[in-house]
Amino acid sequence: MKDAGTIGTIHGVGLGPGAMDLMSVRADRLVRGARQVAYFRKAGRFGHARRTAEGMLRPDVVEIPMEYPVTTEIPFSHPEYNACLSAFYARCTEQLVAAAGNGEDVVVLCEGDPFFYGSFMHLHSRLAGRTPVEVVPGITGMAGAWNATGLPITWGDDVLTVAMATLPEEELVRRIRDTDALVVMKIGRNLPKLRRAVAAAGREDGAWLVEHAAMPGQSVTRLADAQSVTPYFAILLIHGQGRRP
Amino acid sequence: MKDAGTIGTIHGVGLGPGAMDLMSVRADRLVRGARQVAYFRKAGRFGHARRTAEGMLRPDVVEIPMEYPVTTEIPFSHPEYNACLSAFYARCTEQLVAAAGNGEDVVVLCEGDPFFYGSFMHLHSRLAGRTPVEVVPGITGMAGAWNATGLPITWGDDVLTVAMATLPEEELVRRIRDTDALVVMKIGRNLPKLRRAVAAAGREDGAWLVEHAAMPGQSVTRLADAQSVTPYFAILLIHGQGRRP
Repeated sequence: MKDAGTIGTIHGVGLGPGAMDLMSVRADRLVRGARQVAYFRKAGRFGHARRTAEGMLRPDVVEIPMEYPVTTEIPFSHPEYNACLSAFYARCTEQLVAAAGNGEDVVVLCEGDPFFYGSFMHLHSRLAGRTPVEVVPGITGMAGAWNATGLPITWGDDVLTVAMATLPEEELVRRIRDTDALVVMKIGRNLPKLRRAVAAAGREDGAWLVEHAAMPGQSVTRLADAQSVTPYFAILLIHGQGRRP
Repeated sequence: MKDAGTIGTIHGVGLGPGAMDLMSVRADRLVRGARQVAYFRKAGRFGHARRTAEGMLRPDVVEIPMEYPVTTEIPFSHPEYNACLSAFYARCTEQLVAAAGNGEDVVVLCEGDPFFYGSFMHLHSRLAGRTPVEVVPGITGMAGAWNATGLPITWGDDVLTVAMATLPEEELVRRIRDTDALVVMKIGRNLPKLRRAVAAAGREDGAWLVEHAAMPGQSVTRLADAQSVTPYFAILLIHGQGRRP
């Protein structure tokens, strides 16, 4: 227990791609020692970050699940979608500030790396100046994915482009044509669009779909052979073919 | 000691950006348990990967330093440069195969992530079919760098481009103009060219130079204020400014 009156630190801790022993030694220590852990999850689910930490938490830990509002009925581009998420992140921020107010640290469990397309970023920017905040980097999901293929993603002077499948189709085609190595995330329902874009860019032969990298059920499939994908955990890869002495 | 007659496994182990406790739990276990470790270094230097593992190795460990041939007198684009490196990697491969031949595993210490612009890749492709090989992903140097700035590198649908400063200047300008978030590595003597390219792309204001991320002497400087850089460990970042509810 810390001194009464002090404010706890909020740690955004990258857990890596999903295997427990791929989190950093620093993350492992923080997660195992935490008296309070928070994590995002979909309503009614256990939570992927929480699952990665299963078996590591103190028996007396206080858990703070932060459940995304159900937003699938609002179109992604609608201003109400943003407003709804913004209000959600503001509520989560108040929860964490209150939890840290008792003088105890809070460990926020983050998939991958907290500063790489992560939800924690939306709390981090709101917590600034209110509580001490520390971030622990993690192995990204994409590194887990290229590791799963058993092949390097980039060689020599290769350019790597990381793009989201939520981009417009023409923009995806242009990006896929104009790079050596490619990573595409946020695939889910965008898979048909992404397949058309990869084909239009003439790069189907080198495209791989990795699902659940570094997790139980890991699979590596040629994009051409892929039927459907897990909404969240699929990553498309095209390996660079650069200079290799 | 393993059974005589068996072949040891060669582990390419990502050590992360440089802080000892940012290596994964899996890497930590392998490094501490290794009876044989190998690592690349410049001739006459201690070696950056070796330094990250300092204090972790068994007292009876056998060390296999692999010293890059001195190649600065040969131009980078010269065929002899490639031939010289190719012969070097072939020699290293034979050294590791011989070391694994006694039945003991070999842990190859790799900075960052072994499959992301790493030297181990050149051994990995040569070892295929000769010994068992396992790769442990690591936190990349670039993740260490954006963590050092205290700001997320990508938001929402941001496109991230990773490029090497060894590219031609016009190509760098084009890439820097055409991305939301940017990471540039292999800077060293290319700094003046890179500065011109960032300026020509109109993005000097958002450009940061991170040196020795997650290591002693870490520094974060606006590119505009940078004087000179450490040849190897400098990374240029431009943070994405994408959608943030």
